[in-house]
Amino acid sequence: MAALREPSLGPVFGMKGGATGGGHAQVQPMEEINLHFTGDFAAIEKAHNLLAALIDNAIQAKNPHVHIDPRTVRWKRVMDMNDRALRQIVVGMGGKTNGFLRETGFDITAASEVMAILCFASSISDLKKRLGNIYIGNDFEGNPLFARDIKAEGAMATLLKEAIQPNLVQTLEGNPVLLHGGPFANIAQGTNTVLATKMAMSMADYVVTEAGFAFDLGGEKFLDLKCRYAGLSPSAIVLVSTVRALKYHGGKPLKELTAEDIPAMEKGFTNLQRHAENALKFGISPIIAINRFPSDTAAELSALQGWCQKAGIKAAVAEVWAQGGLGATELATLVADAADARHPQKHKLLYADGDRMVDKISSIATQIYRARAVNYTSKALQDLKLIEKLGLGHLPICIAKTQYSFTDNAKIIGTATDFEITIREIEIAAGAGFVIPIAGEIMRMPGLPNTPAAEGIDIDDQGQITGLF
Amino acid sequence: MAALREPSLGPVFGMKGGATGGGHAQVQPMEEINLHFTGDFAAIEKAHNLLAALIDNAIQAKNPHVHIDPRTVRWKRVMDMNDRALRQIVVGMGGKTNGFLRETGFDITAASEVMAILCFASSISDLKKRLGNIYIGNDFEGNPLFARDIKAEGAMATLLKEAIQPNLVQTLEGNPVLLHGGPFANIAQGTNTVLATKMAMSMADYVVTEAGFAFDLGGEKFLDLKCRYAGLSPSAIVLVSTVRALKYHGGKPLKELTAEDIPAMEKGFTNLQRHAENALKFGISPIIAINRFPSDTAAELSALQGWCQKAGIKAAVAEVWAQGGLGATELATLVADAADARHPQKHKLLYADGDRMVDKISSIATQIYRARAVNYTSKALQDLKLIEKLGLGHLPICIAKTQYSFTDNAKIIGTATDFEITIREIEIAAGAGFVIPIAGEIMRMPGLPNTPAAEGIDIDDQGQITGLF
Amino acid sequence: MAALREPSLGPVFGMKGGATGGGHAQVQPMEEINLHFTGDFAAIEKAHNLLAALIDNAIQAKNPHVHIDPRTVRWKRVMDMNDRALRQIVVGMGGKTNGFLRETGFDITAASEVMAILCFASSISDLKKRLGNIYIGNDFEGNPLFARDIKAEGAMATLLKEAIQPNLVQTLEGNPVLLHGGPFANIAQGTNTVLATKMAMSMADYVVTEAGFAFDLGGEKFLDLKCRYAGLSPSAIVLVSTVRALKYHGGKPLKELTAEDIPAMEKGFTNLQRHAENALKFGISPIIAINRFPSDTAAELSALQGWCQKAGIKAAVAEVWAQGGLGATELATLVADAADARHPQKHKLLYADGDRMVDKISSIATQIYRARAVNYTSKALQDLKLIEKLGLGHLPICIAKTQYSFTDNAKIIGTATDFEITIREIEIAAGAGFVIPIAGEIMRMPGLPNTPAAEGIDIDDQGQITGLF
Amino acid sequence: MAALREPSLGPVFGMKGGATGGGHAQVQPMEEINLHFTGDFAAIEKAHNLLAALIDNAIQAKNPHVHIDPRTVRWKRVMDMNDRALRQIVVGMGGKTNGFLRETGFDITAASEVMAILCFASSISDLKKRLGNIYIGNDFEGNPLFARDIKAEGAMATLLKEAIQPNLVQTLEGNPVLLHGGPFANIAQGTNTVLATKMAMSMADYVVTEAGFAFDLGGEKFLDLKCRYAGLSPSAIVLVSTVRALKYHGGKPLKELTAEDIPAMEKGFTNLQRHAENALKFGISPIIAINRFPSDTAAELSALQGWCQKAGIKAAVAEVWAQGGLGATELATLVADAADARHPQKHKLLYADGDRMVDKISSIATQIYRARAVNYTSKALQDLKLIEKLGLGHLPICIAKTQYSFTDNAKIIGTATDFEITIREIEIAAGAGFVIPIAGEIMRMPGLPNTPAAEGIDIDDQGQITGLF
Repeated sequence: MAALREPSLGPVFGMKGGATGGGHAQVQPMEEINLHFTGDFAAIEKAHNLLAALIDNAIQAKNPHVHIDPRTVRWKRVMDMNDRALRQIVVGMGGKTNGFLRETGFDITAASEVMAILCFASSISDLKKRLGNIYIGNDFEGNPLFARDIKAEGAMATLLKEAIQPNLVQTLEGNPVLLHGGPFANIAQGTNTVLATKMAMSMADYVVTEAGFAFDLGGEKFLDLKCRYAGLSPSAIVLVSTVRALKYHGGKPLKELTAEDIPAMEKGFTNLQRHAENALKFGISPIIAINRFPSDTAAELSALQGWCQKAGIKAAVAEVWAQGGLGATELATLVADAADARHPQKHKLLYADGDRMVDKISSIATQIYRARAVNYTSKALQDLKLIEKLGLGHLPICIAKTQYSFTDNAKIIGTATDFEITIREIEIAAGAGFVIPIAGEIMRMPGLPNTPAAEGIDIDDQGQITGLF
Repeated sequence: MAALREPSLGPVFGMKGGATGGGHAQVQPMEEINLHFTGDFAAIEKAHNLLAALIDNAIQAKNPHVHIDPRTVRWKRVMDMNDRALRQIVVGMGGKTNGFLRETGFDITAASEVMAILCFASSISDLKKRLGNIYIGNDFEGNPLFARDIKAEGAMATLLKEAIQPNLVQTLEGNPVLLHGGPFANIAQGTNTVLATKMAMSMADYVVTEAGFAFDLGGEKFLDLKCRYAGLSPSAIVLVSTVRALKYHGGKPLKELTAEDIPAMEKGFTNLQRHAENALKFGISPIIAINRFPSDTAAELSALQGWCQKAGIKAAVAEVWAQGGLGATELATLVADAADARHPQKHKLLYADGDRMVDKISSIATQIYRARAVNYTSKALQDLKLIEKLGLGHLPICIAKTQYSFTDNAKIIGTATDFEITIREIEIAAGAGFVIPIAGEIMRMPGLPNTPAAEGIDIDDQGQITGLF
Repeated sequence: MAALREPSLGPVFGMKGGATGGGHAQVQPMEEINLHFTGDFAAIEKAHNLLAALIDNAIQAKNPHVHIDPRTVRWKRVMDMNDRALRQIVVGMGGKTNGFLRETGFDITAASEVMAILCFASSISDLKKRLGNIYIGNDFEGNPLFARDIKAEGAMATLLKEAIQPNLVQTLEGNPVLLHGGPFANIAQGTNTVLATKMAMSMADYVVTEAGFAFDLGGEKFLDLKCRYAGLSPSAIVLVSTVRALKYHGGKPLKELTAEDIPAMEKGFTNLQRHAENALKFGISPIIAINRFPSDTAAELSALQGWCQKAGIKAAVAEVWAQGGLGATELATLVADAADARHPQKHKLLYADGDRMVDKISSIATQIYRARAVNYTSKALQDLKLIEKLGLGHLPICIAKTQYSFTDNAKIIGTATDFEITIREIEIAAGAGFVIPIAGEIMRMPGLPNTPAAEGIDIDDQGQITGLF
Repeated sequence: MAALREPSLGPVFGMKGGATGGGHAQVQPMEEINLHFTGDFAAIEKAHNLLAALIDNAIQAKNPHVHIDPRTVRWKRVMDMNDRALRQIVVGMGGKTNGFLRETGFDITAASEVMAILCFASSISDLKKRLGNIYIGNDFEGNPLFARDIKAEGAMATLLKEAIQPNLVQTLEGNPVLLHGGPFANIAQGTNTVLATKMAMSMADYVVTEAGFAFDLGGEKFLDLKCRYAGLSPSAIVLVSTVRALKYHGGKPLKELTAEDIPAMEKGFTNLQRHAENALKFGISPIIAINRFPSDTAAELSALQGWCQKAGIKAAVAEVWAQGGLGATELATLVADAADARHPQKHKLLYADGDRMVDKISSIATQIYRARAVNYTSKALQDLKLIEKLGLGHLPICIAKTQYSFTDNAKIIGTATDFEITIREIEIAAGAGFVIPIAGEIMRMPGLPNTPAAEGIDIDDQGQITGLF
């Protein structure tokens, strides 16, 4: 049984395809899942924005419970849309009736702290407690204020009544899949809800889950955040690799990735090897799934398997796109063997809660990303001070970083070593229970590309949709 | 059978109760309907905001289909939330990557032109055509641009695939009700979708629908907009009145409305009489439904019935809250008689498409509201010029005006005559097929009250919701 | 002796020429006067903007004397520049260090209340008192706040130490001229300082002053504001007219004004006649100065003189541009005769201090501009209420209106009658002692034209300036 | 003869005193110099802001010479005022008539590039050339645009016609002083105009000039910028020191600096020593002027002289405040001796024009400030790229940094070594001929303090000013 993330609508209209998988491995019903699905994202968005409206209303109110200093409010709004124009905005204009002006912005809904909270909540009362713990800003005396101070958590949780229920769907072959929660792994924690994972574990012998993007993002966060909070410990780790990706990391241009090029692959293999080493740092030997593409040549697949063997990493070719479950028999055997081992590997955390905040960030940056050092902008340094002042120094870390590179620069491929990571600012997710150092230029609200996919999406009078994959 | 509007989430957290009716007349399931229901509002919001993102993306794009002048863009964003801070905003800040700065804002989703379009659409292809006709602004040469010019309508319609389907629910007594579409009657056209109304008419002998707020808003718009476009003609008009409302319009303070006061009622009766006269201007004699409240005294009810009789208006006391359908037997008989009349009354429109824009506005303002004259701000005069330039002078009118008064000032009760209406600006809904003159101070994005209802809404671990009515 | 206004730098770079007169009537030194002159404008600007900085500093301060509600601040900044981008701005962005965000803007320095105060001040202590009386906004309890509440008037007056001294220059013929104070007559009170006028009267037998633009603006304001406050009473009124202007008001296109056209002049003469009638409403018969241009034909001049005679208005051709003082002998005789009359005409005010604010505005609009009625936007109505609440209802009026028309629409020439004036908003100049109803689209910060004069202005290595007239 | 900077009005109303010196060493007339003086600052401000108005006008113009991309404009506005609210603003709001919205801000006039240009200009034609070279932003194709591209330099230079003339004043003892140009040494180049210095050198045997704040700022910039451009070479360097300052850098609290404390002085002496070493790096042995304060004890003065002697630095106590010129006889002799030396010391530059931009910055940061390394924010890195792209990599450096510390953190006193400098952004002054890396939190627009000096400034009816020192 699989426990996976729900897709976000935002990228659907941009350049990314949908998120239901392809070929024989597809999850159904594709269109509904890629559009509004069961409304979970809309409910999360509404709960998030209700808090924003309550904050601005409290600032404007005549005799509020608390006197929020509008200059300190950190809570933004969210929209499940790739909309760069909303990244930085001024609200409250148009005269006294419309409130105090504030600089703020929108993140994409997948990056909402409410999304993160839903992913970690163990019950409705836990959900409410976490929602109430959201840090919103300070009063004029400098005291921190939380969502509970303006009595927001009850109404927010009410809006999440249905969203907190996992959604059961199935693959084309009829395998059950729980889709629940949808944080991105570059800008958020990148994995589905704890509730869905535990529900799946209560119903199936083996539960497969996904930790988005590469292991340095989704993997690290799954192990250091989700497992830390939920007390989970994976029995096996699968790293999905493709011949194409190795060639890309070996320096081959994007447009030429379908041509055979074993030297480029060999060069790119170091990238895969590093992810494998990283997995080992969490105490678990990974298994490589070679996700076969039609353009892969036998020589390429063979070379890759050879290198894995040489490096002491178990690997199997998977052809689920073309053949469904049947195409993953070997891989499944490897994974089941690992899971069934008499002495299962024991997952360990990369850092302890009690470590200093900068040391935790440093652990991830130097051990996983392999950066030489971590720089902080003065904004980030102020944020660190605020985190200490709020007594949140014990929280674990959820770094926002580009998924295209080990570094914070999307253009640096392969296995860079001589680089530093710059933390631009640190968002506080006190309710979710982590802080979000933002590395480099990564944006928590994406933009649309020059020619957005939306231009090609259509529906006819029979309700038949085209252009949505 | 009833064909009614879906409720908006926005006011739920403000000071208004839910919108499912009360007592024995309630529509079920109350909580779901008052929260996300079937996701129609969320889908409309998404389609609306997708267009906004596509516009800002086209402004930022390197080789766009069209060169939108950012200073001319009129398309705002929407959110189903009472959030005054979003009324006027600046977007696109934060450097070249985030686009061009623009002054814009959010309306509440109920006021979205996409909502209006959904309410008027007769099919998916009609929906797409109307979405494509949305006016977004001008290019640098001054040519008007529409949603179709940036190929937005296909993706927008795709997002509305489910929302275009009417939603069937039932009352506590099991009567079928179609809830579909939710524009407010003060700031939008105030009535449910044409599709739902026609579906109901195909299934039931009698279809009752609702045109929100008082007859000067919902009634006028139902007859002049929905009936005009859908070719509908009502067989009867019911004006709902209460003893409380008459006392209020007679000048009695809100807090004293439960005390018997026949002189105040008599004074307030002129307000009801004017609504009745207004209905007659559309060719149909209205029936008064006296919606009985526990505090109404027999003397009051009797006096009211007497005045109605004297004025030649049919009237019946309705006790649906306390007794359900049984409490409306007399009323139902009156309505059914009107509907079954051998020579049914023929509905007529207040103004013709070919009338000048200012004359159409004047017809409504002077004949229905009874204003002495209509003033236009210079912004409104510019809007009128733009409407002519766009060749949209033939469109009908959907005035946004306070529901608390015949005037554009919420505090003037009763039956004012010596007043003028000021049109502040005119929004263009070219896709929906009307223009929206905004009268007085009415806002298309409401705010939360000093103590928002959200503070009292809660949910417990069994999912039991409190504070939501 | 003449007592005139100093020129503003703003228009110098726009499309207007300098303000030192031409031909033999020029005031010297032209370049210095048209550039920074004695720094009075710069000092006024600095004093004005110091108050703005003190206001924003008090809002940001930790324990301020008063708690200014940033949403209520009405004091803008000024710059002696035609800079439309500064009309509406948001300040205070960039984080808590930079203060509270506010919507505000810049007016041109000529429109500064500090300029108006300097023009009315009778001494340094009077100056300080008036500066202290400037209304800046409210505190959070709604109490009005004045510049004195943040102790601004001493430093502001200190900055005006030199600016309060009148500046003595001379014409090419050596006639003494006091240039002092420079408010525009369309957007401000349009006349020089009381101090300079009184100084001139103490030194010369005859003092000629100027009240900018046409009599409906500068004339009305000179008589109703300056004379009211300074206790002055003019002995004669001169209306300057040109053959060109009459042709223009008779409907002749701008480019054809040099061609003889007596019928157009006759049509345009009604405009001049109305100004003459208006002067009579203040109790004084005006004298027409026909300012001769080279293109004027003898027939045109003769026709104009004939119409004046027929209308019973004294008139004389003045050729000061070509001949200096000698060219105005006849005019001077007429004026001196009026001034020396045994029973001099007695100037009277158009309205009394005690009249209602709307009646005062109405007096000017209907009697001088000849409007049918005055409309108020809702912003203006709110301003009226605020003025009453501040106890400033007794103040006289200084309407800001286009100088190109009797109406508030610059394109309506001649003598319109069937029109209404719309008051967009009302600025409060409590220190200067008047309120400023703003009519129509007039801006208190001008913009530069498509091709600004600045492009043609240059200086060579010898300091010789070109392009500045 | 002295050639010094003119004071800025901005700090006068803040917490700094005036800038005319004190006691017997004061320059007269104090009040005029500290207020508007000869209007040079006002003229510079006007020329600067004219360019800003021309830029926004060109963006708004219908057929401009060049199509400026509003997202790329870097030219801000200036005001000679401490006004933090103007640091970051949005302009152009209020509809199409008011232009395109842009994020921009105001610097203080002392930081204007026009100020820097005036300080370096050798003639009016050189002034115009430099003004024309000001970089304003890019067109839509990415081509750089300069002030000359919108024909701004002629009008700007015209406004500076008088400001380019040096201003002659005198000390209380009648010594001539040229005051001309007023850039601050923390945020700009910190020294008077080249024209005034050269004029003084043509008239006097010895010319003393000032390079503001400590040697790491004013000194380095005088030598590396002014001397580089003007071909000047100083004959001697004087470092002004006080007993108080040494105690402060030795860690003694501000409020206790008047108490004798030789151990603290000794600790603080390392700071002075480092400045002396820095001077030597430019090839010249400095002379220490010990500026005596009344609270200095004989033991303290003696100790300081002892340490200087031990360190091999010439030093003399100066008592000009108490005694005027007579108090500086010994100092003057030391300086004159150095200047008259048969083999005068030869000044050398710290870096060559041809060095890489980052190396130049590094030279200053590591050799003068003694930082371990220089960090760049991503904004600064983008600025570096832009500078290369504009072909301006050869320009020298004018670092903006706090004057309170060798580091970029005002609170680190003494002689820190274990620190890094962070360059936040780099402003481009292509017309002046340098780039301005901004280090740490330094602001180019100061703010007023909690209780601004303006509150205590006043003027009486006799024009007597109080509170202005």
